[in-house]
Amino acid sequence: MQTSTALLIADLVGVAVFAASGGSAGVAKRLDVFGVVFVGCVAALGGGVFRDVVIDNFPGGDRLGGAPPLAFADWRYSVVAAAAALLVFWLHPQLARIRRTVLLLDAAGLGLFTAAGTLKALDYGVPVVGACILGMMTGIGGGLLRDLLTGEIPLVLRREIYAVAALVGATIIAVGSRLPDWFGIVVPSLTLLLTAAAVTCVIRLLAILRNWSAPVARES
Amino acid sequence: MQTSTALLIADLVGVAVFAASGGSAGVAKRLDVFGVVFVGCVAALGGGVFRDVVIDNFPGGDRLGGAPPLAFADWRYSVVAAAAALLVFWLHPQLARIRRTVLLLDAAGLGLFTAAGTLKALDYGVPVVGACILGMMTGIGGGLLRDLLTGEIPLVLRREIYAVAALVGATIIAVGSRLPDWFGIVVPSLTLLLTAAAVTCVIRLLAILRNWSAPVARES
Amino acid sequence: MQTSTALLIADLVGVAVFAASGGSAGVAKRLDVFGVVFVGCVAALGGGVFRDVVIDNFPGGDRLGGAPPLAFADWRYSVVAAAAALLVFWLHPQLARIRRTVLLLDAAGLGLFTAAGTLKALDYGVPVVGACILGMMTGIGGGLLRDLLTGEIPLVLRREIYAVAALVGATIIAVGSRLPDWFGIVVPSLTLLLTAAAVTCVIRLLAILRNWSAPVARES
Repeated sequence: MQTSTALLIADLVGVAVFAASGGSAGVAKRLDVFGVVFVGCVAALGGGVFRDVVIDNFPGGDRLGGAPPLAFADWRYSVVAAAAALLVFWLHPQLARIRRTVLLLDAAGLGLFTAAGTLKALDYGVPVVGACILGMMTGIGGGLLRDLLTGEIPLVLRREIYAVAALVGATIIAVGSRLPDWFGIVVPSLTLLLTAAAVTCVIRLLAILRNWSAPVARES
Repeated sequence: MQTSTALLIADLVGVAVFAASGGSAGVAKRLDVFGVVFVGCVAALGGGVFRDVVIDNFPGGDRLGGAPPLAFADWRYSVVAAAAALLVFWLHPQLARIRRTVLLLDAAGLGLFTAAGTLKALDYGVPVVGACILGMMTGIGGGLLRDLLTGEIPLVLRREIYAVAALVGATIIAVGSRLPDWFGIVVPSLTLLLTAAAVTCVIRLLAILRNWSAPVARES
Repeated sequence: MQTSTALLIADLVGVAVFAASGGSAGVAKRLDVFGVVFVGCVAALGGGVFRDVVIDNFPGGDRLGGAPPLAFADWRYSVVAAAAALLVFWLHPQLARIRRTVLLLDAAGLGLFTAAGTLKALDYGVPVVGACILGMMTGIGGGLLRDLLTGEIPLVLRREIYAVAALVGATIIAVGSRLPDWFGIVVPSLTLLLTAAAVTCVIRLLAILRNWSAPVARES
């Protein structure tokens, strides 16, 4: 299996997982089947569309011939997202039993989306701080839109270790991509991506397991 | 009357209708006159701005010299939207009596926006599945933003036949634009656009008249 | 101090003020420290990102080499935004006492963002009406997103003199930039920008002081 195939599969797994999370939110709000599919697709594809619309404005947008959002440029993304949301619609009572699996997959999706988003942003010439923020937005953007659509204050604003785990992964990508310049060490892209994704995923899972929480402002 | 003039008029009618729907939502939420105009403009122009921002990333963005959103590139769009929303602000008690007319116009607007959006996306080189989704987003995007602004779960997520009617129209455009390649049959763009718009409109109206509804997931 | 330095400082002051307004909204909703920083950054940077994503589609996007959103292209923007939101998180009980200062700064930020946004849109070839609307969106966009994220109907829809003050400032920029063509009068950009920003700011402050309000539609 080639690297590009491995990356595509990792990406589609992330899409499926986030679509499932969106579909679950839709089912919980008693949306009908089309609403469930729609929220699932937005949750799976929204972060990537935002990233691509932004990076197209950077020099790489011209150099690389634009940044067509994969949600619209590659039919496999929307089909996988819609199929995963449909599965949740049909199977959701069983899903309650595998809630742990869903949380695990969601953490994996967060790691993969963030790492891949940061790499892509750097490729298009986004400076390093901006690339980290944009990578984080790729990871958390879909869930943000899911919560806005279903009328909730975004979960990511309340479960702090979510966005921060993404930011740590993005920082690893950013530092790793500078190692050749700083120390002459070349890390293969795929190794870097998987390392960053794994770190994000582990932080997120530890935060769930240990109930980590961040401070809230004291009452005035 | 030339084709381009016919298309412009059809487009502006769609803008006016969606602005009226946004204005009504604003009046219902007791917004003041400026809020009503703002929500009206967002409902009328939001779907098209989203479409244009996305298609600019595709090859056609460079080939055709960018995709400046008409909401900002052509003053007639924003003026028509603002005027329609203002009319609703002044006349809204009378509007209750013509609610059927508004629903009819809204269905027509949905059909026109979706069909024109799909055609434009194909023109800019969006692949066929992506173009259908983007066309649907052009049709339903404004209403989605209208509902988010006024603090509602988007209607389109709950009245399923809305988005699906748009998707059927978009599919007709996509298939029709391939007929020359597949069967050597050339359908004029305007004929194709009006057919697709009419089908979307009729499905939407039948759904209203017959109270069609889609399944909701069974309780767990 | 050079003009460009003056502009950068004015811009960063606007960023800090809007980040503080977003941070306050986050504290009021009992978000944790990361949520407060996130809402602050979105409030400070959201309007500019929207403007840059749209103007990249206009002819100036190619001519000027794209319109990379400063939020991602220049690390000072995100760092200032995050720092201002953090300060609010720590100091918010004291902030209640300086609420007048915050309102004053917010009015100044609205004026500066709107004026700078309109100028930039004109530079990129957005026609005059569109540039005014886009300038207004630059000024009010961040606050709009802040309210959507925290589950409120956007304040700008209810405090009408907010958006209208921005629109007046944008119009001054648009008219001023045409004076050379119409009357042969050349106004330096910085003078024009500061005049327009001051007018927006004064209108906004008068609206607060005098409780100006706009009509609401009569009950049906």
